[in-house]
Order: sequence, then structure tokens, then C-alpha cells
Amino acid sequence: MLRSKVYPFLNAAITSRFGCGTTFFRKTTPLDKLSVHQCCALSTHSRTLQNEQPKCGFNTSTTPNQLKELKTEAPQHAPTFSAPSINQFTTRSHNCGELRISHVGQEVTLCGWLEFSRMNKFFTLRDGYGTVQCIIPEDACQKFNLDQLAFESILRVTGTVQPRPDGQANRTLQTGEIEIHVSRLEVLNEAKKRLPIHVKDHNRAKENLRLEHRYIDLRNRELQQNLRVRSQVIMKMRECMINDYGFVEVETPTLFRRTPGGAQEFVVPSRKPGHFYSLVQSPQQFKQMLMVGAIDRYFQIARCYRDESTRPDRQPEFTQLDIELSFTDREKVIELIEQVLKKSWPYSDNPIRGPFPRMTLAEAMERFGSDKPDTRFGYELQNFTKLLGTQLTMPAGVRQQDFRAYGIVIPAELAQKLASGLKKSLEEIAKKSNFCKFTQSQITADWSTGPIARLLGKEPAEALCDQLSLRSGDLLLLGWGKRTFVQNMMGRIRLAAYEALEARNLVPARQSHAHNFLWVVDFPMFSENEETGQIESTHHPFTAPHPEDAAALNADFGDNIYNIRSLAYDLVWNGVEIGGGSIRIHNSQLQRLVLQDVLKIEHTHLHHLLDALESGAPPHGGFAIGLDRYVALLCNAASIREVIAFPKSLDGKDPLSKAPVPISDEEKRIYHIRVVE
Amino acid sequence: MLRSKVYPFLNAAITSRFGCGTTFFRKTTPLDKLSVHQCCALSTHSRTLQNEQPKCGFNTSTTPNQLKELKTEAPQHAPTFSAPSINQFTTRSHNCGELRISHVGQEVTLCGWLEFSRMNKFFTLRDGYGTVQCIIPEDACQKFNLDQLAFESILRVTGTVQPRPDGQANRTLQTGEIEIHVSRLEVLNEAKKRLPIHVKDHNRAKENLRLEHRYIDLRNRELQQNLRVRSQVIMKMRECMINDYGFVEVETPTLFRRTPGGAQEFVVPSRKPGHFYSLVQSPQQFKQMLMVGAIDRYFQIARCYRDESTRPDRQPEFTQLDIELSFTDREKVIELIEQVLKKSWPYSDNPIRGPFPRMTLAEAMERFGSDKPDTRFGYELQNFTKLLGTQLTMPAGVRQQDFRAYGIVIPAELAQKLASGLKKSLEEIAKKSNFCKFTQSQITADWSTGPIARLLGKEPAEALCDQLSLRSGDLLLLGWGKRTFVQNMMGRIRLAAYEALEARNLVPARQSHAHNFLWVVDFPMFSENEETGQIESTHHPFTAPHPEDAAALNADFGDNIYNIRSLAYDLVWNGVEIGGGSIRIHNSQLQRLVLQDVLKIEHTHLHHLLDALESGAPPHGGFAIGLDRYVALLCNAASIREVIAFPKSLDGKDPLSKAPVPISDEEKRIYHIRVVE
Repeated sequence: MLRSKVYPFLNAAITSRFGCGTTFFRKTTPLDKLSVHQCCALSTHSRTLQNEQPKCGFNTSTTPNQLKELKTEAPQHAPTFSAPSINQFTTRSHNCGELRISHVGQEVTLCGWLEFSRMNKFFTLRDGYGTVQCIIPEDACQKFNLDQLAFESILRVTGTVQPRPDGQANRTLQTGEIEIHVSRLEVLNEAKKRLPIHVKDHNRAKENLRLEHRYIDLRNRELQQNLRVRSQVIMKMRECMINDYGFVEVETPTLFRRTPGGAQEFVVPSRKPGHFYSLVQSPQQFKQMLMVGAIDRYFQIARCYRDESTRPDRQPEFTQLDIELSFTDREKVIELIEQVLKKSWPYSDNPIRGPFPRMTLAEAMERFGSDKPDTRFGYELQNFTKLLGTQLTMPAGVRQQDFRAYGIVIPAELAQKLASGLKKSLEEIAKKSNFCKFTQSQITADWSTGPIARLLGKEPAEALCDQLSLRSGDLLLLGWGKRTFVQNMMGRIRLAAYEALEARNLVPARQSHAHNFLWVVDFPMFSENEETGQIESTHHPFTAPHPEDAAALNADFGDNIYNIRSLAYDLVWNGVEIGGGSIRIHNSQLQRLVLQDVLKIEHTHLHHLLDALESGAPPHGGFAIGLDRYVALLCNAASIREVIAFPKSLDGKDPLSKAPVPISDEEKRIYHIRVVE
Repeated sequence: MLRSKVYPFLNAAITSRFGCGTTFFRKTTPLDKLSVHQCCALSTHSRTLQNEQPKCGFNTSTTPNQLKELKTEAPQHAPTFSAPSINQFTTRSHNCGELRISHVGQEVTLCGWLEFSRMNKFFTLRDGYGTVQCIIPEDACQKFNLDQLAFESILRVTGTVQPRPDGQANRTLQTGEIEIHVSRLEVLNEAKKRLPIHVKDHNRAKENLRLEHRYIDLRNRELQQNLRVRSQVIMKMRECMINDYGFVEVETPTLFRRTPGGAQEFVVPSRKPGHFYSLVQSPQQFKQMLMVGAIDRYFQIARCYRDESTRPDRQPEFTQLDIELSFTDREKVIELIEQVLKKSWPYSDNPIRGPFPRMTLAEAMERFGSDKPDTRFGYELQNFTKLLGTQLTMPAGVRQQDFRAYGIVIPAELAQKLASGLKKSLEEIAKKSNFCKFTQSQITADWSTGPIARLLGKEPAEALCDQLSLRSGDLLLLGWGKRTFVQNMMGRIRLAAYEALEARNLVPARQSHAHNFLWVVDFPMFSENEETGQIESTHHPFTAPHPEDAAALNADFGDNIYNIRSLAYDLVWNGVEIGGGSIRIHNSQLQRLVLQDVLKIEHTHLHHLLDALESGAPPHGGFAIGLDRYVALLCNAASIREVIAFPKSLDGKDPLSKAPVPISDEEKRIYHIRVVE
């Protein structure tokens, strides 16, 4: 074995170079100051780009004898870092991001991408950890002819760390105080000229092009950072789950049977004609069966699949932190999740504290018009139902008891600075909302004009303004109609209005790292599908009823079934739902009732779960955090695609490989399928 | 929030019980000795099985007021363990496996499965951590009527830890020195009577039945242990990769495009007619693109898919520790893998040490007749080619230079004790081997009889025996024919013969935890498919050539292409291949040559990888460990199915859900497919 404990980095430099392995070497200092090592290397490796173009052959440029010589004479360079040893097992001594003024005088070997070169003399070398400036000594510049080499080519550089000349330090760069005086330079792999995209922080190419050449785009600093943060955060979650709380990570299958009543699942044909697996949309059933199987503290960083290509910011495959435990209750699951988030929080200078506030769904809808309220700003909905109930025209199809009216007031001093475009975009939101109406009006001095006055009549309008202390110039946004519909509409209007104020710097900008975590609890167990009118589970059919409402859940349920609360809970962060969970039904009779009598779900697909519940099933509950979205928020990324190494594009296509693609007739034969156009 | 920091376990006992939540309570001590808590509990919870059958309704048995009372008066029980806190966030104070003599006197609350009960008085409670004996005080036995309750029902038990009476300690049980004197007993969920399988260590049901009811079988001690060891070992691997060596865990997609030239991949129809994803058989391409993308230290616990239902001990989905790093070489990858295995090794009393020995493939085949030699025993192949080359009849179709003869000698004192069945089973192995012949013969006193004499003639046979110092009674196993074929045959015969010796206790048994790790290196880059005669990659088409042989790899290759060694390496443990890897090709021209000119692979499927290699690709290499198999070996499990929570059966079916199953017409419509019978 060619291993040298004494000169770990040097040993690396001398093995396994085949590919574009031309070696460049030249002296950085007058010859009398050179070390024995450098002299020796000079004598055996000296080549120049001018005289000898890099060969893209497969020969090695160093022979075993030369290696021996180098190894014997090489100076020892102790690494200055301890753990993690990100340079161990490589042919570099340091990476491009770690050199500081304290390294001055050391000989280092760096590997990376040629980011930029100038005058055949200066170049910057980049890797995933940073960039560093390198200088080829004056008398060697012509020999190297570096400017002929395509950017993004792979170099290995050996040289000495030197302080930058006085006044030339670059404070914006972590390595900005030093530069490398190059003594040896190898081109390990030449890149082609004119790559389709650049690796730049600014002026990045359009997303589609970047996704198509993801292997280049990944070198971008932001993507590097995002993927590293993702890995770290998930590792901290694991440490918390396993090392602190004794959970067991269990890998569950993804090739399974269709779960009725959920999202559309991908199907996978098998070799048995007409028989298909479905790709799991979550490990829900497996984790419940694990509870029955006495793996009472389960978690998994689980790959899940949903064929929802039409929804924005979704991926056909995504990742969730999936947790389930036995002999627990809602309070304990909530406490556990708070602990996991706190312990895995990546910003130690800005830690989060718990317990997070709670809100019932009813309160969230009433105050914020949303099941995932963004509590970073006010402008809450004001309930005008009593005040205006008799004046407003009820939209068609709304029953009296379902009628609600809500308003949002934007003060005059802000309202007058808003662009007129806002009015139109709010109307757009309103237009898309069924069973409700919307009007917006700037309050005028005498109330005699404007939509509010026209709507209510002059005197009721004046009364309204008096009661609300509305002043001339205030903007009143008013919605009314069927409860949940008008709440949702006004919630969207609240967000749009605040965004408009924010865009004009009229209000404090919402901070992406604000700690507005919020538990939303007491969801109804069932809800009416807005399109079909059918009853469905608000969360999923395995969610347990709230103990206070459980008695109402029996075979003789009527319309009040919609009032039964469940033990589901959602976690919202800065207005985005990042996870959800529930205490599950552990009683087989209750589960049958929910599936069969209430939801009318064909439960032959679920016989194994029902069997499990009557085979000794402990009370249990759990949670799942959507990691793509959570990490995207943590990284302040524009979309979840910025925290996924190889995302699909919006239409579910893989921009790299162009998948999905046609398959061969042979494969169709194996899986007994024919394509129907 | 109903949270009590002071009485964490008690708080649990008072919330969220709905389901079969009947509560039993009785005093364990005379009333005057009862704590306030117990009195109070007695007054509100007292029910007996005799008077009141457990209601499988959905009412809670504790009201908020009672809870408050309980909480206020409850004695505090500090947990005796620190980390991991496996009882935190649950309604138990301890688990069923942790109580010892040091806990005597403590009041504890345990949750678990009713394993066994006797005389309405004694019962054992089991959870994933162990079992504990519980005793209902004499005067309460009749009330509880526990024997009516089905085994495997879920109980919560509160009681006091007491030492077992003198002479009744059970040394085979971890909790065998104590017992719980029960003061309160709740049935949280009744199991049905007569479950299809038992949770027993001995006499376990047939595997198919166990897989069908996996949620019961998982309670078995061995499966519990296996899944927990699996989780721990993989966590240690992660700690090593991330915390020690600065690797980044990156999740790569599983919905991708077919990789040409590998195993059969599952296909997944998309909503675009005739267009399919393929489920990845490994993240090979993604990890190489990550290297190009400057994520230079990647790993992943990766889910992989192969549709190879016909091969034994395989699963359609499996897990590998997948590693890749840039600027490395073979030596460094090997050192890294050794470190990972050492650091994640679960048996601290029997640690593994490195570096592991190495062997070229040529040597492994020559000495052991296998590319994954079991080096735990000798009986190596002896090369008789020179000795017998002229005497033996060449099998048809074998060229002179490919001819080899190997023998294995089993000494007389062992051979005479072997069963006659072995002879037949060795003949069976020989029959399945093409291009070679086999004979076995016990050496007789005068060499004049027996197959060897008949084969060689009396005098050459005598000469052979002289030269090998064979004694009368020795068993000679002799094979000859085409090199690789006869090596493989003799390798299988070596294993079968040793197994037979082992079965009769004639040789030391191979230890499953022996540390016979072995690196096999210097594989040929290409080999001839034994069936089709076509050239194919020995590892995969992305494997780099050995630098010493690289020059021979050019467009004018001839038959000597089979002599080119690659930089692939396999890791073998006790005769099982547990992983493999290689240094990859990073030069796009070389990769094109291999794909196009040598392997004639249609590489339109690989354009993204070829593009990546010319966009700034560093030298890189990696490794993958098959975790299912590795953990199965670590756990000394009979098959990989014993270390997978929910394995498929041998034919790729899911015994639990019965997947794959027919899909609906609607789903066929969505995915534009029709089934062809």
C-alpha cells in the first residue's frame, strides 16, 4: 500500500493521476531559496503550457521513482484544523476556503475549479468551501499561458501562503488576506470552452437552463450552502431523535399498495400481469404498524411520492421527517417536536425558544383568515357580521348562520402611497372566491360617495365609519359571504395588501428568520369537499377524535359530524405550514366506523391496518415535517428547488436526463402493458 | 397547555385516553399506608373486569377535575436513566426492560403488551425493551379476572417495585430480580383472542405467516434487536461521515431515466402518454454529477430499486451506504471505508482493526476459487495444472492456455467420518459447471483402484500421491477445465466440503463475528458474458482503468482488452461481498470510448453524464455498502428479511398488503396504459 502517515497530502499528489494529467511546475523564489523538495520536483516535472499542450490522454505523468524521491524529501505540513477533517482522504492539504493569515509561510496543496484568470499571472481557484487567489511568479507567467485554459477546468495547485501586499486585502472574501504563490500547477481535467451557464452569484441564468446543467449550477455558493445546511440540520434532528430520545430510525418500503382517499399515487407495474405497486405518499400505515409491533419510538427521514405535478412548489418525490411514538398524547408530541426543532436549529446566534404559541383553527380563521396564519404582522380581520349583517346582500347559496362579514383597515397615511395596481389584484383574489363578495373603498370626507356608501347607503356608511373611527383617506377592505369562504378570501387579501405595503417600504419587512412558530389545533375531524360536497377527512382517516367530542362520533351521526374536533395539530412558521400530525385511532371498531360508515372508503385496501389494530395496538400519535419546505425557509430560498440537489421542473420532468422518456417494447412486454395514446 | 414539568409521567396518565380506556385500580397496601394520590385514584377509577367489562367506546375515563387532583398530589419519580430518555414524551415512567434491584421501593408506571397471565394474579408485561413480572395482590385477584383478557392486549400498570421473594429471582431475565406490585391497572386496548402467530423466541411460525402479520412478529426479541442495531449502526456511520469527516448527506431522486446496461429497473408511467420514469438502481450518476457540482464529499443512505425477483435473498428495494469523494484515489477510499466500518462497529468488546488484508482477484480465484473468498478456513485450492496437464483429458471447447487443474485434499481422519451424501452433492455442483470436469477419490493403499487411478493410470496416480504426500484414506477432490469455470467450481466445492465437515463437528465452526475482512482488487475492467459471449463491464461502465494498464485502452483494442485491470475494489467479509466501489472515469473522451467503442452502449441515455464530465469534472471515486446484507451479517440473521422492518417475500410480493394488486380503470386512464395479459 502506498500510504504515508507522515506526509498525507503529498502522498495524495503522487498517486492515481490519469486523465488530463499534465503537470506544470516552476519556481516561486530564487533557486537558492528553494527547498530540496522543490528543486527535485522542478527537475522532474517542469513542463509549460506553451511548449506542451495538456494531453487528454490516459498516461500518468509521474513514475514510481519520481514519487519516491518526492516523498522522501517533502516537508511535513500538519493540518491546522481538527474535526471534521474535510481534507482527509484527498490529495489536497487544505481547501480553497480555509486559508487565513495564520497560514502564512505554509506550503499547501489545493484542488479546485479555475474561476478566473488574468494576465497569465493571477487566478482564483474555487471549490465548495470558498475561493482563493493564486499568483504565478512574474518569470513564469509566459510559460503557463493560463489564459488559454477554459474557466472551470480542474487544477491542483501547490504553493506557499503569503500575505497580500499592503492595502490589497479583500475584506469581503474569507481568504482575502492571503494569496498563494504557486510553485506547481497541474491541470487535472480541462473543461470545454463556453459552458452553457456561469457560476456566479449575480445574474444567474434562467432556472430551466440552470436545472438542465445542474452539475454546473451546484457550484454556486448559495446552492452549496443550502445543501450543506440541509445535511447539517437533518443530522442534528437525527442526533436529537436517536441520541437524546432513544428513537429508532426504521426504513419502510416505498413499493406498496394504494392508500385510498389520499393524493394521486404513482403506480409501478410488476411482472404479474395487471398487478401494480403504488409508491407510498407517506409511511403512515407502516409507522402505525410499527407501533403495533412494539417499535414504540420510530422516526424516518422518509422519501414520499405524490403525483401532483400541477401544484406549484411541489415535487413528485419529497422528504419528510416522519415521527411516531406510542403511549403518548398531543401535549407530548408537541413538546417533542419543539425540542427537535430547537436542537436542530442551525442559527446558534438566534436560537428559538418554546413553548410555541397555540391557536385553535377557529381563532386562526377568525383573526387571520387562514389555517396557517402569518403572525409576523397585524392587519387582522375585523368581524363586522353584527354591525353590517342586515345591510349587506347575502350572496346566493349562503345560509344565515353561515354568513360572516370581515374588514381590514389600512390607515390613510399608508393607503395613499399604495399603487393603484393593488386594487386590481385584490379584485382578482375576490373574483376567484365562491360564495362571497368584496368591496374596497377609500373613505371620503362626507361618506356620500364610493362603494361603501353605495353599498350601505350614506347614513349606515357614516355610522360604520364612526363606530370604527375611520378617518378620511383610510382604505377599507370589506368581504362578506359564507364563513370559511370569506375567511379564506380575506386571509388572502390580508397577505396581498401587506405585501403591497412591504414592497413600498411602508411597513416593516417580514423577516424570513423571524421566530413566528405557531401550533394550530382543534381542526374538525371531517370537512365537506368544496367541489364535490362529499365528506372527507380534514387530515387523514386515521386521526383520532378529540376526547371531548368523541362521544358524538357514532353510527348515528348527523350534520353535527362537522363539529367534531380531531386531535390533529399543524405547525406553522411565518405563515407556512411546515408540518402536521395527530393522535391516531388505535381502536379497530372506531377505525372501521370512520372508514366504513362516515367516509364510505373501500377499506379492503386497509385490511392489514385494521387487523393490526385488533392485534394489540397501543395508543399512539406522531408528526411529519416537510423537510424540503422547512429547509427552504431556513435557507431563505426562493423555492424548494433551491434546497434539493436534483429537483424536477414544475411539470414533473427531470431537466437533466429528460425523464420521463419512452421505454422499450421489451420493457412493455416484461410489465404486460401497452401505451394508450 | 396541560404540561407538568414536575410530574412528567403522571401528566401523561391523565390525558388523551379514549379507546378501550377502562381503568382498574386497587390498593396494594392497607389503606392507611396509601398515599393521597392513591386514595384519590382509588375513589375515582375503581372498576373491575368482573363488574364492568371494558367498554370499547370512545369515552375518556378521567375528567379534568380528577386530573388536577392527581397532578397535585402525585409523588415525584425521578427517572434513574439519563440519555437517551426513552421514556420521555410518554405516559410511562419506565419501560419493561430497565427495572433492577436498585429501583425497589419506587412507584413506577409501565405500558406494554400482556404476555402471559396465571391464576388472575401473576402476569408478565412486555414492550420493546424487555419483560417484567407483575403481581396483583391476593385480595384483588378475583376483581381483576385478568385471565379473561386476551394475551397481547395493551395495559398500563402502576405499582411499586419489589424484590422477588428469596430464591425466586430469574437470572435469565434482566428484570429477574424484581417484580411489580400492582396498584392500578388499565386496559388501553384489548386484543382479539387467538392471534394468528405468537410472539415467542422458540417455535416461531413459518416465515410467510410471520410476514403476513409482521406487526405482531416485530414484537419478537430478535427482530426488535435487529432493527435497533440497524438504526444504531447506520447512525454511527452518519456520525463518522458528517461529524468526523465533513461529508454532506445529499438526497438524490429515485424517479429517473433508465441506466443502460445494468439490472432490470422498475418503470413508472407518467401522465405524458408513453413516457416513463425508471426507479434508480443506484445513485451512481447523481453522485458523479455532485462531484462535478463541487459537493466533493457526498454520502447517502440511499434507497435503490432492482427488479430481480428471481434471485434469492434480494429485495426489490434495498438500502446502501453510498459514498463518493473528489480529489481522491483508491488507497484513500479504502482507508475511508475501513474507518467508517471501525467507527460504526457495534461490538465494542470485539472491535475490528485495520488495515484489512488485500488480495488481487487473480489470487482470490487461484487460492479460493471465488471473488469473495471466505478466509475463515483453509482447504485452499492446489494448482495441479503442471503436474497433471498432460494426463487429463481436456474438456471440449477449452484452449490449452486456459486449461487449469485444481485439487483439494481432505485428510483421511476427517474424510472417513464424512457422510456419503457429500459425494453426491459435490457431483451436483460439478454437473452445473460448464467447461470442466470433476472427480473425487479416496486414496487406496495401492492406488490401483478408484477414479484417480482409472483417470491417470496406475503409475501417474502413484506419482501424484507421492508428490502430494497423499496417504491412504485421504480424499482428493480434483477439478480441471477452463480456468475461471474450474476455479469457480472448485470454490463452490471447497465451501460445500467445509460445510459438511463443520456439520459433523470435524473442523472448527466458522464464527459469524470473525473479522475476516478482505479487499479484493485488480478486477479486470471488462469481461465476457458467460452466456452471450458479449463484452461487458465487470463493475460498471464508469469505472476507471488501472493507471498501469490505461495505455492499452484505446480505440484499437483487441482481445487483450480483457487483461486491462480497473480501479475497482470489493470488500468481502467472511466470504460475503458487502460492498464495492471504484475510482471513476473523469475524462469525457475516455468515458465515450468505453461506452461507444468498447461496450457499444446506446449512450443517449447518458448524455447528461458525458456533458458533466466536460464541464469541469474532478477526479473522483467512491464506494457503496449493501446495508441490508451487512446488518444481517452483523446481527447473524438468517436472511436480510430479518433486518428489514417490512420485507417483500421471495417473489416480490408484500405479504401484508398483498401488493402488487390490480389498479382502477381511472388510474390506467391517467397513465395512458392498458394491461396486456
